Amino acid sequence: MAIAQARDGICNGHGGPFGSVIVKDGEVVGQGHNRVLANNDPTCHGEVAAIRDAGTRLGTFDLSGCELYTTGEPCHMCLCACLWANIDRIYYGCTIEDNGRIGFRDDKFDGLFSGRDKLEGYLVQMDREACLSLFDEYSALEHKLY
Amino acid sequence: MAIAQARDGICNGHGGPFGSVIVKDGEVVGQGHNRVLANNDPTCHGEVAAIRDAGTRLGTFDLSGCELYTTGEPCHMCLCACLWANIDRIYYGCTIEDNGRIGFRDDKFDGLFSGRDKLEGYLVQMDREACLSLFDEYSALEHKLY
Repeated sequence: MAIAQARDGICNGHGGPFGSVIVKDGEVVGQGHNRVLANNDPTCHGEVAAIRDAGTRLGTFDLSGCELYTTGEPCHMCLCACLWANIDRIYYGCTIEDNGRIGFRDDKFDGLFSGRDKLEGYLVQMDREACLSLFDEYSALEHKLY
Repeated sequence: MAIAQARDGICNGHGGPFGSVIVKDGEVVGQGHNRVLANNDPTCHGEVAAIRDAGTRLGTFDLSGCELYTTGEPCHMCLCACLWANIDRIYYGCTIEDNGRIGFRDDKFDGLFSGRDKLEGYLVQMDREACLSLFDEYSALEHKLY
């Protein structure tokens, strides 16, 4: 579902191939995709868009009990956004390095900050292959990189 | 002006005493304050609100040439948001530890991640005393902490 969100975003030229879904008690409570280009908002990564959506839908800034699924490993900004939101766990597909390979600066910022390794168990990888296919689709579209 | 933004926010119960102003070529191009409570958006810190405002006003996601003034030292999320936005420099009043002292978790997240020291020259402190007075006002209001 996160991949479908991301595909929706890239097909509409909203931004990079990053889609996120937030689940609580087995139900989707929030979703979103990267809208940096569409909204002229450099903070509107997929994870942030999904957190905003869940906050609005649930009527709270506290997303305790929620898990987030996302196509690319969260950048430092999004990782901290999930911590502020009290998201319980993050499942991601492609890695920070994969994000870098298709032209995003996640890897540069990750090189600047350390401590991600302390979050083992909080950050769980899954479905990388399917997400890599999505990234290939994006690269083929040759969208504007930022 | 960042302090006035923050005061506006706390007087209206929007969130913490965090206001930000973005300046380009001597003109204010964006401003905002913490609206975590008001918007049920845990990502809506003052810096993020100001970046969104500037992006909308200037019609771009690229805030190169802009400087950001903020009442409290940016948390990791906001620091990375500024990097993504290509903000040139950040001027802040109170420190991460000051943020922690009035009940926010900035200091906990800062303890988790390191690398901030690599950004010397990018993060510049100024007007701490005036911002501390603002923080005292906030504490006196005994607003809901999150």
